[in-house]
Amino acid sequence: MAEKITPRATNYPQWYLDVVKEAGLAQNAEGVKGCMVIKPTGYALWEKMQRALDKMFKDTGHVNAYFPLFIPMSYLAKEEEMAEGFAKECAVVTHYRLKAEPGKPLHVDPEAKLDEPLIIRPTSETIIWRTYKDWIQSYRDLPLLINQWANVVRWEMRTRLFLRTAEFLWQEGHTAHATAKEAEEETLQMVRVYQKFAEEFMAMPVLVGPKTDGQKFPGAIYTLCIEAMMQDGKALQAGTSHFLGQNFAKAFDVTFQNEKGQREFAYATSWGVSTRLIGGLLMTHSDDNGLVIPPRLAPTHVVICPLGKNDAERGPSIAAAEKLAAEIRAIPRDEFFGYEPISVKIDTTFDKMPGFRFAEYELRGVPVRIEIGPKDIEKGACVVARRDVPGKEGKQFGIPLAGAPEHVSKLLRDIQKALFERAKAYRDARTVTATTLDEFRDLFPAEKDEGDAGLNALKFVYAHWDGTRETEDLVQKTYKATIRCVPYEGPTEAGTCIFTGKPSARRVVFARAY
Amino acid sequence: MAEKITPRATNYPQWYLDVVKEAGLAQNAEGVKGCMVIKPTGYALWEKMQRALDKMFKDTGHVNAYFPLFIPMSYLAKEEEMAEGFAKECAVVTHYRLKAEPGKPLHVDPEAKLDEPLIIRPTSETIIWRTYKDWIQSYRDLPLLINQWANVVRWEMRTRLFLRTAEFLWQEGHTAHATAKEAEEETLQMVRVYQKFAEEFMAMPVLVGPKTDGQKFPGAIYTLCIEAMMQDGKALQAGTSHFLGQNFAKAFDVTFQNEKGQREFAYATSWGVSTRLIGGLLMTHSDDNGLVIPPRLAPTHVVICPLGKNDAERGPSIAAAEKLAAEIRAIPRDEFFGYEPISVKIDTTFDKMPGFRFAEYELRGVPVRIEIGPKDIEKGACVVARRDVPGKEGKQFGIPLAGAPEHVSKLLRDIQKALFERAKAYRDARTVTATTLDEFRDLFPAEKDEGDAGLNALKFVYAHWDGTRETEDLVQKTYKATIRCVPYEGPTEAGTCIFTGKPSARRVVFARAY
Repeated sequence: MAEKITPRATNYPQWYLDVVKEAGLAQNAEGVKGCMVIKPTGYALWEKMQRALDKMFKDTGHVNAYFPLFIPMSYLAKEEEMAEGFAKECAVVTHYRLKAEPGKPLHVDPEAKLDEPLIIRPTSETIIWRTYKDWIQSYRDLPLLINQWANVVRWEMRTRLFLRTAEFLWQEGHTAHATAKEAEEETLQMVRVYQKFAEEFMAMPVLVGPKTDGQKFPGAIYTLCIEAMMQDGKALQAGTSHFLGQNFAKAFDVTFQNEKGQREFAYATSWGVSTRLIGGLLMTHSDDNGLVIPPRLAPTHVVICPLGKNDAERGPSIAAAEKLAAEIRAIPRDEFFGYEPISVKIDTTFDKMPGFRFAEYELRGVPVRIEIGPKDIEKGACVVARRDVPGKEGKQFGIPLAGAPEHVSKLLRDIQKALFERAKAYRDARTVTATTLDEFRDLFPAEKDEGDAGLNALKFVYAHWDGTRETEDLVQKTYKATIRCVPYEGPTEAGTCIFTGKPSARRVVFARAY
Repeated sequence: MAEKITPRATNYPQWYLDVVKEAGLAQNAEGVKGCMVIKPTGYALWEKMQRALDKMFKDTGHVNAYFPLFIPMSYLAKEEEMAEGFAKECAVVTHYRLKAEPGKPLHVDPEAKLDEPLIIRPTSETIIWRTYKDWIQSYRDLPLLINQWANVVRWEMRTRLFLRTAEFLWQEGHTAHATAKEAEEETLQMVRVYQKFAEEFMAMPVLVGPKTDGQKFPGAIYTLCIEAMMQDGKALQAGTSHFLGQNFAKAFDVTFQNEKGQREFAYATSWGVSTRLIGGLLMTHSDDNGLVIPPRLAPTHVVICPLGKNDAERGPSIAAAEKLAAEIRAIPRDEFFGYEPISVKIDTTFDKMPGFRFAEYELRGVPVRIEIGPKDIEKGACVVARRDVPGKEGKQFGIPLAGAPEHVSKLLRDIQKALFERAKAYRDARTVTATTLDEFRDLFPAEKDEGDAGLNALKFVYAHWDGTRETEDLVQKTYKATIRCVPYEGPTEAGTCIFTGKPSARRVVFARAY
């Protein structure tokens, strides 16, 4: 199967699309421009992500709810920045009926026109804050800590599976608070939740910090984000958490009586991650053999391939595989695997060559593969291969069957850790400081522009910046690089802007981005 | 709180709306006609339902995927019955951009008109079968066993929270098979899965069987369904499973090469249940005190109310409550509770009167309430109240604290069973046979029409029917009663149609329905 995958070094964007296709994650929908079909393998990944994130949201006091898909156009108009930010990519519902007349093709019924057009939610701040107006009367109703799992639509012209699609799946948290301080603490808490999820489940190291004003969410006072590095050195914004101040409370007149009996506007946050994470996961760990999935998010943890040339050889191999599978599944459930059993699949496609079978599971990113053949059984042992080290290098021979369940359980944890460490070492090695404009220019050459950057082509670049929108816009226009964030964990000494020579409070991180 | 709820006997439809509102399940959305906001308490119920159903789908070999929200109008047109069935209630997207011009209100950009209108999926057979065309080449690709959790839109004019809303949440299974026999077995298997879920989780007894041709799904060869009785004696269609034959394969040209090397159209099924189930759950078990939730679907299983007049009394009560809560949560996880811990909440709203606190949890349907006050602690005991028997009748006094966790665990199982048995006894007592037209007429009087039927007003009526669409339509028009299904478990002897005097193969079930 791996022959179907273009190597990363040959054509990185094509490699991405090949892995998405060959691992069966998703495809473009026919007849609906820019929308995707998330195939079972891709959706299983999303389910694992949802399950883990949902638990983290609930552990921090949030509950789920569901708000309408449709938003009256006038609601969007109430928050000016939001209207400007999303107007250009809204799907608009104008009619509520088709007409099937004899002898005529099915058509939109002109008499069923809505008085007011409805837009498909691109994000739900407006409809939710209109609802919160009914829910919030007193400080006793606060905080309101709500999350929604939903589909949203942003009519994008240039789409790429998972990374940018017209319809995508996401979660959006929308909280209301009595004080700015509490809302700001929530904003920070949730970006830290995203960081924890990215690092501990996705094994994807991230920078955390505020966006600049030029990059913040429409309607936000400020936006915090997590930013990850892909294997072409480009950045992927993987999650955002917004402090919205009183903007939406004012737009929808949401006031509460505070403890002193005065009426006050409520403070808001919103935060979200989406199916884009699947693209980020893929581009963080996968290789020329296909998908690599960190064990904590793997729908199947272990595949056992019994081997044998004929039925006489295969019978004992299958029996040993079934015994081992049962033992692995019986390992007590724990937090690492989300209190679910370790998931084991037995592959019995004996009509295919063993190498082909192994390649198939490498392609699909199953973290651990176990091979059991006649010679292994003689020795009471098996072969254990780890997906993060493909081919022979990742194979351990002669693992005793008796201790194999514990071995596999530990190996899965080791792989999770190794993937994070490898990704972090990769990012750290490709994070540099530019002290002059010449250095900066060399780091963002025009030929490594979006679409053909290439494997290892780019870096995260710390540089001093004068803090103005003008300079930021100029850099973006000239070098196609944006300020990804002002990282909490980055260097903080003052200096001189490399673009304008004006004073700079601290270095920020520039990168080309998805 | 219960004073806010209209008694069932006074006004049954108002009682329903009161419970939905006062228990915090849902509300009508502002500004979006016919859409609902599912509030956290309601959504938590849906999550429990999803979790249980999803496991049953996976245990029967299905996987989840996700298909686009949008369907090109021409796809709907390809299956004639489907186009006719859904054309009148389609939300139609005609534009993909708004325009925010200075000095003008936000408006639809007339230049951003789609070449072909898109409809919001009312159900996804068309877009899915267009996709299956790419996935199905050979008999080796079959069966394809896929489910989707999604929102759908049917532009209903007369809506009622949960029971009938313009947008609702559901799951829709869409399977493809190599033979009609296999597809028919799948159709039957899934309606039996729905029956199992309804009876074992919702504690809601259902009739199972095919719909008549007049009531089947547009595009189906036949439809199997589960039908439940609400407390006004009306029927609720709670789930359907359709055998679609080759209709959609032909509409979208989905053929496969069979084992003999011939090309053949694939056979289809589809099956779904929706947030309507929440309305059904409510109307099956709830009472004049509020919501009653079967333990297997209860987001909170147990609430412990420590009692005490002052801090000196409350301290030991809280300590005892916390100890007991920890012990209950530590009971080993098992299948009955979906391998999740028994969920316990401690209520410390001492500023409210105990009676008020108890009523609050009765209203919200928490299956078991435990009260621990100073006198109980003296005796090393507690009071345990079961929600399905409200008020003093459901209270057990002097339950020793030492054995309370096991007592509660067993009581939850008893309540689950008791709710099913009570609902079944209710339905069976209100299921009758009409042997003459006069009897039938008396059972469906005009004044007990939809909207004001009243508690216990109606019945399920077995009657002979000549098997024709004409008679069925006439009965519906005259008595507002429809044939709910031809139940597998019903009487099967032949007779004479009570409406026309023609021969009848067997009795069918008539009822007024939601």
